[in-house]
Amino acid sequence: MPHIPLPEQLPGITGLLEYRLDTALPIRELTQLLLRGESTLSQGERELIAALVSSRNGTNFCEAAHTKAADLLLGENATALAVKQDIETAFISGKMKALLQIAALTQQNGKAVSSEAVARAREAGATDREIHDTVLIAALFCLYNKYVDGLATVAPADPAFYEMLGERITSRGYVRPPGGYQQQTH
Amino acid sequence: MPHIPLPEQLPGITGLLEYRLDTALPIRELTQLLLRGESTLSQGERELIAALVSSRNGTNFCEAAHTKAADLLLGENATALAVKQDIETAFISGKMKALLQIAALTQQNGKAVSSEAVARAREAGATDREIHDTVLIAALFCLYNKYVDGLATVAPADPAFYEMLGERITSRGYVRPPGGYQQQTH
Repeated sequence: MPHIPLPEQLPGITGLLEYRLDTALPIRELTQLLLRGESTLSQGERELIAALVSSRNGTNFCEAAHTKAADLLLGENATALAVKQDIETAFISGKMKALLQIAALTQQNGKAVSSEAVARAREAGATDREIHDTVLIAALFCLYNKYVDGLATVAPADPAFYEMLGERITSRGYVRPPGGYQQQTH
Repeated sequence: MPHIPLPEQLPGITGLLEYRLDTALPIRELTQLLLRGESTLSQGERELIAALVSSRNGTNFCEAAHTKAADLLLGENATALAVKQDIETAFISGKMKALLQIAALTQQNGKAVSSEAVARAREAGATDREIHDTVLIAALFCLYNKYVDGLATVAPADPAFYEMLGERITSRGYVRPPGGYQQQTH
């Protein structure tokens, strides 16, 4: 049961984003810019960062939602699963391996992001902006994970819920649906 | 040296917020709402949460800046220091002790925020909204701390820098100064 009263039909982050609409707006805008805005990283690659960080934080709701979003954007279910199991053996580019390692280090502790980890990414072709965005996306998902877990929100067990949510965030992005989440989850 | 090229005269978060202005805007807005917007917690109490979380994450830049902001808002230098050393023996209300413990648990891991910690806050008079905001402020400062440390930004050693920055964020808040930070730090 959540630590504060939240609508039962709005589990995980969805109820929190309706609880305080004024703070939800910049959180949504930041997410939309980072995960859906212009970038040399594909939307699927950016969702992999979100899924990995949420998995490392053990935040089931966010892990399931962003794994589903990555799966839909990449057109297959193997990569996100492989990345969460072992970044190095996943079937992704050397650049994405290095960037996902930076995201994993950011999740542990910002100070863990070493010059070696950054040099590896740069040698694999990553730009400054990609390195910047990887750190900021990882930091943003630590915010989400702490928000969702810190208020003890509920993570539905039914995979169909995350299929619906993954479908929504790939088709509509992170802006608030007209009328709020309420109407979208029924 | 930062992992990406940032202007030398803009250390810590200040250079990052100028590096990518589009993502900086919602980060600033969220901070302004949470730390300066309407709340039953004083601005000084909210800066204590920011200072405590930054201290626990070992992010010197943010710790120094928000300690200074708390000191200015509270009108004394003892409380922020005491809170960072030991929440329970600091000269603050029972409600603030309970809320700062929730912030400290959120910093560790969202799942660490126990029903007992929340019940303690509620018994000490904390509202749902205060509990919500405490978790979200703590999560936001984990984002800031990971952003600042993950890109290896520089923390000036000179206390005068944080006096200037603390003065700025107490008098102007978290909105971008006209013309950006550049003109403000000279």
